[in-house]
Amino acid sequence: MTFNGAKPRRNQNGSVGVVKRQTAHFTKPLRLRCGRTLERYTLAYETYGTLNEGGSNVILICHALTGDSHVAGYYTDDPAEKPGWWDEAVGPGKMFDTSRFFVICSNVIGGCQGSTGPSSTAPDGRPYGLRFPAVTVQDMVRAQRHLLDHLGIDALFAVAGGSLGGMQALQWAVEYPEMVGHCLFLASTPRSSAQNVAFNEIGRQAIYADPRWNDGDYYDADPPQGGLAVARMVGHITYMSEHSLEQKFGRRLQNHDALPYQFVDPEYAVESYLKYQGEKFIKRFDANSYLYITKACDYFDIGEGAPTLADALRVAKARFLVVSFSSDWLYTPEQALDLVTALEAIGLDVRYHLIHADFGHDSFLVEVDLMTNVVGGYLNQMWTKTTSNYPVE
Amino acid sequence: MTFNGAKPRRNQNGSVGVVKRQTAHFTKPLRLRCGRTLERYTLAYETYGTLNEGGSNVILICHALTGDSHVAGYYTDDPAEKPGWWDEAVGPGKMFDTSRFFVICSNVIGGCQGSTGPSSTAPDGRPYGLRFPAVTVQDMVRAQRHLLDHLGIDALFAVAGGSLGGMQALQWAVEYPEMVGHCLFLASTPRSSAQNVAFNEIGRQAIYADPRWNDGDYYDADPPQGGLAVARMVGHITYMSEHSLEQKFGRRLQNHDALPYQFVDPEYAVESYLKYQGEKFIKRFDANSYLYITKACDYFDIGEGAPTLADALRVAKARFLVVSFSSDWLYTPEQALDLVTALEAIGLDVRYHLIHADFGHDSFLVEVDLMTNVVGGYLNQMWTKTTSNYPVE
Repeated sequence: MTFNGAKPRRNQNGSVGVVKRQTAHFTKPLRLRCGRTLERYTLAYETYGTLNEGGSNVILICHALTGDSHVAGYYTDDPAEKPGWWDEAVGPGKMFDTSRFFVICSNVIGGCQGSTGPSSTAPDGRPYGLRFPAVTVQDMVRAQRHLLDHLGIDALFAVAGGSLGGMQALQWAVEYPEMVGHCLFLASTPRSSAQNVAFNEIGRQAIYADPRWNDGDYYDADPPQGGLAVARMVGHITYMSEHSLEQKFGRRLQNHDALPYQFVDPEYAVESYLKYQGEKFIKRFDANSYLYITKACDYFDIGEGAPTLADALRVAKARFLVVSFSSDWLYTPEQALDLVTALEAIGLDVRYHLIHADFGHDSFLVEVDLMTNVVGGYLNQMWTKTTSNYPVE
Repeated sequence: MTFNGAKPRRNQNGSVGVVKRQTAHFTKPLRLRCGRTLERYTLAYETYGTLNEGGSNVILICHALTGDSHVAGYYTDDPAEKPGWWDEAVGPGKMFDTSRFFVICSNVIGGCQGSTGPSSTAPDGRPYGLRFPAVTVQDMVRAQRHLLDHLGIDALFAVAGGSLGGMQALQWAVEYPEMVGHCLFLASTPRSSAQNVAFNEIGRQAIYADPRWNDGDYYDADPPQGGLAVARMVGHITYMSEHSLEQKFGRRLQNHDALPYQFVDPEYAVESYLKYQGEKFIKRFDANSYLYITKACDYFDIGEGAPTLADALRVAKARFLVVSFSSDWLYTPEQALDLVTALEAIGLDVRYHLIHADFGHDSFLVEVDLMTNVVGGYLNQMWTKTTSNYPVE
């Protein structure tokens, strides 16, 4: 799989091989921040590697907006099958080294890849649609906590995520401080900015504007694919940098030697690329889930209600690795530094890496080698220190 | 009128008062760059100030994407009427001082504010719709040239414009070098980048996705207002800066003390603002014109076909004032500097001002006082030097 038009350099290390999506069904109610309760719900998840005897080698990976539980490996032996979305990062000898760690990822609550969300069947036998309750990052994390309980896991060596996944990782460190050893916060923000909200809202408006959306009640008819494709294009452009778009496409025409002067069909390669991204996305994603999960991003402000961001973080006990990318204009280095500064102010252990990378927000997925050095190196060091008897520091 | 949420400081100088939109009808064919020809067309225009005897005091203002010929003044005596879109800049004693200059602005060909465009009636008596030929910045400029011929004007003291208007100003300097004394290139680019094209294409895709667009044939039915509103929101966010959005809206809720957790209706103030911008825009703009004019922006590359940008500019004889804004991420200072560097390389007279301003691309409209100093000061100096007998320099 290529992101952002850049081909990730293939990691020479091993693959997790053929994996299976699992599901856990919960009848323990999930009380949501919006005040409503999900009486029963399902989480889809995958695991890679082996849980050690003491249960001390667990890494929870939290996925981004349109991700899912299928982080790595393959579902079949079909050589044409694409691996999970972060296959380059999860496997024996990789960034998240499955010869050492037991890695878990679950599809977020509100999603559409096996976990309960607006496209799921409600107790009345019909799809929820907009009757599904609003979900927040806190709710996603609480659901994940139920999953860990279900799996008999009571501690996380690390929780890690990029983008929305980073928000979840941070929420974990605050919500369940006793459980989290290390928080790996990648290409993310402690607080969605007005511009973050604005871009998400434009995507939602594109879905609302599609008559097929029908107030979210479209599961027995044509889904609002036109609107969802536009929403994806809006999102996608925020994942790339001006530089990467220019390098990859510039003003190159698509299948034409001279401008055809036409509408609808692409003229420039960059238009064709956007169209392709939209078309690819609507095959795999539910429009209502897109609404719910972008809202969860927008609602995220870890400091909400506290006098300062530092006050909100004071409860945390994890060590932090914060990584941002120089060309990421969606979740900027400045936003990540707000977190770093607040963590430092309360004396928590935090390492910050600003990675010089050209691929914008998507750099966290594209820059595999750099990320392997930074994140894999951090995990390696921390694991060694933890398992040897030397105190860390 | 306020832009960008910032209230322009009211200029203490005079207003052009009540003005009238005029129209000129042309039967001289306009051969377009796409290879097609408009046999007859109309341009709407306005003028402010008085043409002097020698015809040496003409300034042509070129409008931006969604602008029109109504730059300044009022159409009625109604005190509630909003003035033209750059009223702060055009009038006695203002940036474009109408006590000295004769200012002209015409609605671009392809537009929907009085000039012939896709919503106009074709020779067969029906609206053109997508049958209207593609237009480029060069075509806009050539049509303006016909208008000047019609008005008996054979020289421009200056041609000025921001954004798409700047592209037109630059095209003027290259297309009719003998006619242009000064080219004022504001918040613009000599070449639309891949990212510029991408944002415009997303807006177009939002329009295409609206079933009411109906391949551009909607003039006897409901227009594609949903799609056009989304297109406007996409555009609008590129006109503002992250900083200005944060300053104005932050995470403030709209009419709520606590998050209502709802869809469609705005929760955050920034969402309400975007919605308002969309709703306001669809009342005044035609969706097909939006398609045509964004395409004209995308097609713009003044260096196209020449070995280098400098080579393409070598024919120009004007003096240049290039102004860009530190927070403009649509047409960046770097893009403007490409023009400056090329002009310097061929020994043309160019002054460059990078204005430190927080309002993003819209700064050229919002930062009236700074712009009056820079642009008004430049015009004042150049006019004084031209009309005194001292050579300029």
